[in-house]
Order: sequence, then C-alpha cells, then structure tokens
Amino acid sequence: MNQVIELLKSHRSIRKFKDEPVTAEQLEQILLAGQAGSTSSFLQATSVIRITDSEKREKLMEFSGGQKWVGQAPEFLVWCADFNRHKSIAPEAKLGFAEQLLIGAIDTAIMAENALVAAESMGLGGLFVGGIRNNPQGVTDLLDLPQHVIPLFGMCIGVPDQDPTLRPRLPLSLVLHENSYNAEPDKVTLAEYDKVVHDYYEERMGANKVMTWSEQISGIVSKEARPFMKAFLEKQGFAVK
Amino acid sequence: MNQVIELLKSHRSIRKFKDEPVTAEQLEQILLAGQAGSTSSFLQATSVIRITDSEKREKLMEFSGGQKWVGQAPEFLVWCADFNRHKSIAPEAKLGFAEQLLIGAIDTAIMAENALVAAESMGLGGLFVGGIRNNPQGVTDLLDLPQHVIPLFGMCIGVPDQDPTLRPRLPLSLVLHENSYNAEPDKVTLAEYDKVVHDYYEERMGANKVMTWSEQISGIVSKEARPFMKAFLEKQGFAVK
Repeated sequence: MNQVIELLKSHRSIRKFKDEPVTAEQLEQILLAGQAGSTSSFLQATSVIRITDSEKREKLMEFSGGQKWVGQAPEFLVWCADFNRHKSIAPEAKLGFAEQLLIGAIDTAIMAENALVAAESMGLGGLFVGGIRNNPQGVTDLLDLPQHVIPLFGMCIGVPDQDPTLRPRLPLSLVLHENSYNAEPDKVTLAEYDKVVHDYYEERMGANKVMTWSEQISGIVSKEARPFMKAFLEKQGFAVK
Repeated sequence: MNQVIELLKSHRSIRKFKDEPVTAEQLEQILLAGQAGSTSSFLQATSVIRITDSEKREKLMEFSGGQKWVGQAPEFLVWCADFNRHKSIAPEAKLGFAEQLLIGAIDTAIMAENALVAAESMGLGGLFVGGIRNNPQGVTDLLDLPQHVIPLFGMCIGVPDQDPTLRPRLPLSLVLHENSYNAEPDKVTLAEYDKVVHDYYEERMGANKVMTWSEQISGIVSKEARPFMKAFLEKQGFAVK
C-alpha cells in the first residue's frame, strides 16, 4: 500500500479547525489539482464560489441547518454545476437536458474530490456540506447564480483541530458485483457490518444515537428527500427535458 | 508541491493498455480507497459492476460508440448510483426524488475519482467512459440492473501503453468566483485559453480537428444531449418527483 492510498483510506470529515488560514498558494494548488481531474467531453462544467464575506457565511450556515463549521472553517467553497459559461460562449446552446444534470454533478464531484484529496495531502482537512441543498434557492439568490448554474454542495477546508476515527464502509463484497447486479446481498455480511457500525457509534458517542447502518439509512430514506429539489432544478433550467 | 498533488496534476485519460492484468490485490485496494471517500449522509449510494465476461465487454463497447479500449482494457468497471440496496433494507423507503439522483451521482463520482487516483498512484491509468450513457437501457438490461439503480459511467483501468500530454484546463480565474457568481468572464483570458487549446490540438493531432475550446464546446452544446435520458431515469425510478 503506497502513501497515496494510505492518504485516501485515512479520509475523515473534519468539522473543527485551528485558527490558521489556508494560504493563497495552498488554495490555488488545491483548485488546480481539482481541475486536473477528468471532465466529460472536456466541458469543464463547474464553477467554485469562494465565500470570504462573513455575512454570506452566516447565511450559508443557516441554510445548512446551523452547521457551525460552515461559519468557522478558514475556507468555505460552494461547488456549482455550471452550463451558463457554455451558454454565454454559445448562445444557441441546447440546455435543460437531464443528461447535462448528470454531467454537471459528476464533473463537479470529481473536481471537488480531487481538491479535497489535495488539501488532505497538505495536512489540511475538510468535508462536503450537502446541507446547502436544504435551501438551494436561498443559496442561488445569495450568490447571484444565473440560469444554468446550481449549487451542489459546500466544502470546508482548514487545519484540523480534531482527530476523528475512521467511519467503517460497507464490506466491498456488498458493493462490487461481477458481470451482473446481484440483487440478493449476503444477509450475514450485512448483519456483521451493522454490528461494526453499531460498535463504531457506541465507542464514538456513548449511549446517544447508537444504531446500525441499516437503522441509520432506514431513518433517512423513510423521509422525503428535499422534495423541493425537482422544481428548483427545473427553475434553474436543469433536467426539464 | 507534494507528490500527491503532482500525481493529481499529471492525470491523463489512458486509452491504450499493456497486455498485463491488474492484480486482484490492486483492484481491491483501488476500490477500498474509492469507498473511503465522502458519502452523503453515509448512504453509500453506489454499486460497481466489474465486467469480466468478454461478450458483455463487446456489448458495452458497442453501446459506448465503439470505443475499443472498453473491450481491451484489463479491467472495465460500470459505476452505478444505487438506491435498490436501501429499498431492500427499508421497503418503506421513499424514493424517486431528484435529490436522490444528485446524491447518487455525487457519491458515485467521488468514489470513482478516488479509485482512479488510487490506480494512478500504483502506476496504472485509465479513464471515465461516459459513452455508456449512449444506451443506458441497453446497459441496464445487460447487467440486470433493478429499479433504483442506474449506470452512470464506465471506467477502464490497466497499465498504460501510451504517454499522452496533459490537456490544459480553463484558467482558474474563469472557474473561481468570490462571494457571488461573476457572469462576465474575462474575454481576454478566454481568448488566450482558446489559443492554448488550439495549439494543444495542433501539436497533438496535426491538421485534423484543430479547434479552440470555445469551438469545441459550442459544437457539443449546440446538439441535443442524450434526449432520452430523462425518460430513462424516470423509468428506473429516479427524479420522478
């Protein structure tokens, strides 16, 4: 196992940061490393909004359900799928296809993950903040996002001031299939994993909120998932056709 | 600049592979490194189908518009957004929300990019194959994907047998905004970048297909983008509400 793989496998979400800035040179290297990732048909369908305005940080923290690290992290970036750039270059562009939503989401996630790995390689840490999708219209208004641009997630970056344990992932045998989808996941393996996650939460949080993975994800998927998202996407000109 | 950032910044899509296998241990490390990436609400909404059946490879090559590396690469993986796993654990799951399409696409792209970086760290190379989305229903039938699973992209992995030059990315100033979206990109910077891309294609391909970035992306976005995708997604139970 080489150092890069060790780095990738040691990823934890960091929510508490030292009061030290990310330097301009670090941020530049993080974003350039991000851009070097793959991009569908070379479309480069991403924009990044760096939030240095403290009032905007406060609002984004509110939109994200009060995640205080959104306000406190040395850097906070809002990652957007962007086809406005293409539209301004090619006014005849045919936009609004569901395929372009996929391209925008995939391109942007690839770039963002590369950026986070680059940050981690410098001893920085951070996390994705999907919580900004609690209020995508609020984010859009706050950041003046035009048609054909949507905020996908935020990202905190800074010097870690905590050292959380790794959160155990699904056994690979439940994720990897060969030649066709195996719709009968091994129940014994899943039960073992459920116990691993239960023990992880018990060790990390004591008596509070201890649950298995199956219990945790059941709680999430039994609720409606941001039911306003479809109308928001369509309003911004995504996936209308 | 550290070695990880050098690795990230040296990414090229590899389409020609030596006749050497990816070992089982390498593939396992690649996928475990992938899984260690961030996942929205711990949902781990991804499945990977490894294609070892040569007839299925042939079909996937056809679906991707005859990209011969899909047939030839030592490993070919199909990356899927997967909420079927959640549905089988929690039959009462409320699925079909556009938000869940975003989660699936973002989770899967994060995992896949980590996996490709892990592969590259071992001296392997590869590329994303969005071309499988030319025929998502064909891929779905071929791989027995159930409801709530969609194929997002393929990925070739192997030992590189080519050494392509880096494809220059947009100047960061056109991608990075501060506090609000800048809808007036600097035309001089864009024109300079267009020349850089033009020169890159000229050097790489001689007189054929030499174009600027603006010309290239205009050609792409002026055509309908896989107009069948919306109906396909809905049929698989994604983004219906």
